[in-house]
Amino acid sequence: VRTGNGYDVHQLVPGDGVTLCGLFIPHDQMLSGHSDADVALHALTDALLATCGAGDIGDHFPPSDPQWKGAASRIFLEHAAGLVRARGGTIMNADVSLIAEAPKVGPHREAMRRNLAEFLGISLDRCSVKATTNEKIGFVGRREGIAAIATATVVYRGADA
Amino acid sequence: VRTGNGYDVHQLVPGDGVTLCGLFIPHDQMLSGHSDADVALHALTDALLATCGAGDIGDHFPPSDPQWKGAASRIFLEHAAGLVRARGGTIMNADVSLIAEAPKVGPHREAMRRNLAEFLGISLDRCSVKATTNEKIGFVGRREGIAAIATATVVYRGADA
Amino acid sequence: VRTGNGYDVHQLVPGDGVTLCGLFIPHDQMLSGHSDADVALHALTDALLATCGAGDIGDHFPPSDPQWKGAASRIFLEHAAGLVRARGGTIMNADVSLIAEAPKVGPHREAMRRNLAEFLGISLDRCSVKATTNEKIGFVGRREGIAAIATATVVYRGADA
Ligand SMILES: [Mg+2]
Ligand SMILES: [Mg+2]
Ligand SMILES: [Mg+2]
Repeated sequence: VRTGNGYDVHQLVPGDGVTLCGLFIPHDQMLSGHSDADVALHALTDALLATCGAGDIGDHFPPSDPQWKGAASRIFLEHAAGLVRARGGTIMNADVSLIAEAPKVGPHREAMRRNLAEFLGISLDRCSVKATTNEKIGFVGRREGIAAIATATVVYRGADA
Repeated sequence: VRTGNGYDVHQLVPGDGVTLCGLFIPHDQMLSGHSDADVALHALTDALLATCGAGDIGDHFPPSDPQWKGAASRIFLEHAAGLVRARGGTIMNADVSLIAEAPKVGPHREAMRRNLAEFLGISLDRCSVKATTNEKIGFVGRREGIAAIATATVVYRGADA
Repeated sequence: VRTGNGYDVHQLVPGDGVTLCGLFIPHDQMLSGHSDADVALHALTDALLATCGAGDIGDHFPPSDPQWKGAASRIFLEHAAGLVRARGGTIMNADVSLIAEAPKVGPHREAMRRNLAEFLGISLDRCSVKATTNEKIGFVGRREGIAAIATATVVYRGADA
């Protein structure tokens, strides 16, 4: 069994909403980035890649590559999940902590978990989405950005206990 | 086997001490929050809930609910541990990293670990408390707050390898 | 099976390069610290110690101890790995996320992973190094420091499933 972590952050700029865990939430700011800037899926993509030492999201999907402009980040996550499976891995669970002053994540948690379950092809009880503010301090507290911390646990056939 | 993460932060304000891992440590600041603002136990509560997709601490214990005003955060952690067990989970280990410029955690580490072992009902060797400063930079480095990152690993009977 | 986390940060000051995962990378800044200030190895050392509740890196290698001045941080990591093994542990995997605005980590990833594999005595596919910027915000975004988040998973003989 192997566990990987992931961390990502994107800047908030004036806009009409943010995409988190593949879900669009209306808001008076948007996340800035080359793709849809879904920090949650980016962090989780990194956590999955980490379980088999397969580099990071910037490696697989360079921000300099025009084909990923505005891309839905589920593409990145599904790619990582496919790569894990191709190496004999079974995804045990996936967990994301969103660190954001706003918008509120709670009302959208279940829809976000369902997205993770669909993108990863695992059961809902293995998918977790949590959220906290940064209590008004730091770059998150000043609403300059949203951060995400992810964890993924994978058992590799043959290789692992 | 499933692993969850947790992150929490609370602001430091003038006061006479902080409660971390259920232990009161005299200090020239206090943590601000609705409950006792124990960032370590809050992060660990989230990590446990994450292992079965059971939402987050704000879900189970809304800060808007007056009954949690000044509450000892062990209540939150014990609730999460009970929920994990009710779903067939055995807690393999619990780990917290405290990120704080002060007070020093080292002298209190063993008492904090004993608290975790008691609250979670697991052996002491499965309980870890670590600490680091933020090297005087960022909101932690400016002593505006204390952050905590937690990890919990749980094996669910039947469901998991 | 038990999973530990680690977090570390060091300040960037004017200099000629940084040491990350045991690799020196020329850069117009250096990391400030008592040892070689390798945040990646420090975070990973903490993650390993966490899996058996063995305190943290500051406990084992006090910054106040002159013998660690300028020390190569592989010493700290190898000590933690040895301690884990002495307690019956087998390291399943090790993962580090570097959070740095610069220098670029991608070109050095494979050399860093080879270092981890050597220091820990495990196969390369069990070693992961990832990197992300902080998108120009926060203390990392202002190039005031570099942070690292690590995860290590260990199976303890007899004690664990
Ligand atoms: Mg990103
Ligand atoms: Mg809290
Ligand atoms: Mg350090």
